[in-house]
Amino acid sequence: MDRVLISRRGLLAGVAGAAGVAVLDRLGVAQGEVPPDATKLPGDPLTALGQRSPFERPRRVVGGAYQGASLTPLQDLRGIVTPSDLHYERHHAGVPRIDPQRYKLLIHGMVERPTVFDLASLRRFPAVSRFHFLECSGNGAPAYRDLRPDVSPQQIDGLTSTSEWTGVPLATLFREVGVEPGAKWFLAEGGDAAVFARSIPIEKAWDDALIAYGQNGEALRPEQGYPARLVAPGWEGSANVKWIRRIELSDQPFMTREETAKYTDPLPDGTARIFSLVMDAKSVIAFPAYPATLPEPGWYAISGLAWSGRGRVTRVDVSSDGGGSWVPAELEEPVLPKCHTRFRSLWRWDGREALLMSRALDETGYVQPTLAELRKVRGAGAPYHLNNIRVWKVHADGRVVFGLEA
Amino acid sequence: MDRVLISRRGLLAGVAGAAGVAVLDRLGVAQGEVPPDATKLPGDPLTALGQRSPFERPRRVVGGAYQGASLTPLQDLRGIVTPSDLHYERHHAGVPRIDPQRYKLLIHGMVERPTVFDLASLRRFPAVSRFHFLECSGNGAPAYRDLRPDVSPQQIDGLTSTSEWTGVPLATLFREVGVEPGAKWFLAEGGDAAVFARSIPIEKAWDDALIAYGQNGEALRPEQGYPARLVAPGWEGSANVKWIRRIELSDQPFMTREETAKYTDPLPDGTARIFSLVMDAKSVIAFPAYPATLPEPGWYAISGLAWSGRGRVTRVDVSSDGGGSWVPAELEEPVLPKCHTRFRSLWRWDGREALLMSRALDETGYVQPTLAELRKVRGAGAPYHLNNIRVWKVHADGRVVFGLEA
Repeated sequence: MDRVLISRRGLLAGVAGAAGVAVLDRLGVAQGEVPPDATKLPGDPLTALGQRSPFERPRRVVGGAYQGASLTPLQDLRGIVTPSDLHYERHHAGVPRIDPQRYKLLIHGMVERPTVFDLASLRRFPAVSRFHFLECSGNGAPAYRDLRPDVSPQQIDGLTSTSEWTGVPLATLFREVGVEPGAKWFLAEGGDAAVFARSIPIEKAWDDALIAYGQNGEALRPEQGYPARLVAPGWEGSANVKWIRRIELSDQPFMTREETAKYTDPLPDGTARIFSLVMDAKSVIAFPAYPATLPEPGWYAISGLAWSGRGRVTRVDVSSDGGGSWVPAELEEPVLPKCHTRFRSLWRWDGREALLMSRALDETGYVQPTLAELRKVRGAGAPYHLNNIRVWKVHADGRVVFGLEA
Repeated sequence: MDRVLISRRGLLAGVAGAAGVAVLDRLGVAQGEVPPDATKLPGDPLTALGQRSPFERPRRVVGGAYQGASLTPLQDLRGIVTPSDLHYERHHAGVPRIDPQRYKLLIHGMVERPTVFDLASLRRFPAVSRFHFLECSGNGAPAYRDLRPDVSPQQIDGLTSTSEWTGVPLATLFREVGVEPGAKWFLAEGGDAAVFARSIPIEKAWDDALIAYGQNGEALRPEQGYPARLVAPGWEGSANVKWIRRIELSDQPFMTREETAKYTDPLPDGTARIFSLVMDAKSVIAFPAYPATLPEPGWYAISGLAWSGRGRVTRVDVSSDGGGSWVPAELEEPVLPKCHTRFRSLWRWDGREALLMSRALDETGYVQPTLAELRKVRGAGAPYHLNNIRVWKVHADGRVVFGLEA
């Protein structure tokens, strides 16, 4: 089980039967207790900050197939927004504590006016807000290597989340400091104990990169880079450097550890893909999926998320027979570029074994590959960019497990 | 001040100067302390559920001009999504505690098959997710009656918020139960101690009403109707009945207390508007606004929210001279129907007194009225639908206060 379950017995202790009368007698219930009839006594008061219902306990999973990461509960989510406290984490030396009053961002190197920005000055530039997914390029390992049936969408693909990011376009800051001719790359360096750093082609700054300080309407969460991070829409998570403290412009990449020893793709022929920054189109079915069990044959709404680092998802096909036949799913508005898109497909389960699959297409014409197709070009041990089609097997008794067949 | 301010002195106690050395010596800092250099020691670990930075304390305001309500901190928010724990509250008898396993929704009256739905059956229907604002029809009283200068956007207009709502279209449920010919209205009744109830024209069900059980990706928050509520997009908040437990179809409205004694608009001629359910187009500037002070003359990004209960906002005009001249603001994508839209307008403050105003237009051609225009038709004491243009006065010393002039 990948959720913390609440004890209903504990919650309801003392409110059933005769004990319920006692609760009503004192015109109130103790913290966590539920009255037999909520219309018969005053409810809880106004609060400065809301809390979840005690019956709802969504949780990130820490660990499993992934080290140094916590995973978003994809099978519990609706729509496209990920609540900020459930956004996946990936960090290499823990979450630094940073005083926003002391925060600085240095932009230097091949610029005309090397400049240090504090948070107040970043916030004074015109801000933009955009919905984008983030995905760790290592996401999906349990669907590519070491396949096993008893893994949930969260455990397989929980290293992706969507937020509304707010910040200043990096292009604005680059115009402010004046980029020298010949600058082609910039280093983005974080202020964590890993001093995590990646080289980014300068075109990304002119295109759509942000220095973000807002997430889902409020300040960034600490584990998402508070007080400011790079957001490189559609690019692998590690390029979206958190706690960003330094940007250095150069005429060449910096070849950091994080783009040489790591975050490259060794290929079967002994060479390696490097700077494979764009996240390819992908989709995941979140329901039905392990650990769900379908109670009976009948109609079900297959539902999941699709996204592409290259722009908008244009179509998601769904199969219930292991890829023998496909039907286009409904895409829910708004379908935004480089953002999770919710898809849905009605399916009548006849009670026999079924293999559910989804296949995303994006506006560049890219089609999400099968596991066999992806392994053929990347090798069976590929560590990153594992966007192959996922398969869920529905047993005749209704149990749903990850499918090893297709 | 309408925010709970953190004590920096308290947070930083023991980490400055010599005390900082002690912190580094033990390779870790106590809860809430901030190291002088976060790159020099391991950060905080992964967590199952994230927390805000201790430097960020957004809070709803409880009370002020409004009874039985808590207000969203509009001046602190970015983009369009309101974090669920900051969504405004309005309830008439407190927040009921409801066990989702015991939750039932009865649909009866002029239907062919009176039916009780439990939560699992509601969730099994095909779900939709849509971004919509909610606004209490009483929102904005401090901008219409009893004007005073020292009120923030939160204190004036904090009874509006935007969420991504997930649920089953009411039309789906109505098709399931079979609506009898002649049914024109339905009663939506809540399961709180007020048994709050409103009559809704049946067209709203066929159009876009939802029985929502999801909010911003997760379950509804308790104060937003957990486990299920009516969402009537674009209609006054009280029509979006929370903790919904009963829907009764009829050939006429039910004339509940909440649409006769309350939530009607007395007019100067002694008559009253009744069932004035649609929220008219409105905009609010969230920056610059009280209690902000502009530090110096120069460029500023005026930023705020606009919305219309009739569809999309098509334009927001901004004035810095009390309505003498207007410039169109930039509308940030996505511009969604019946949803907050973020607008922005660059403004160069010359250091002299200025009057900032914003004016929303929607796709029906409706134009947000001035205070004088609205008072003329509704009277000076109107209790609801107070969507007149707001004015912020910037003093020569940079202080911003609510403007009483325009």
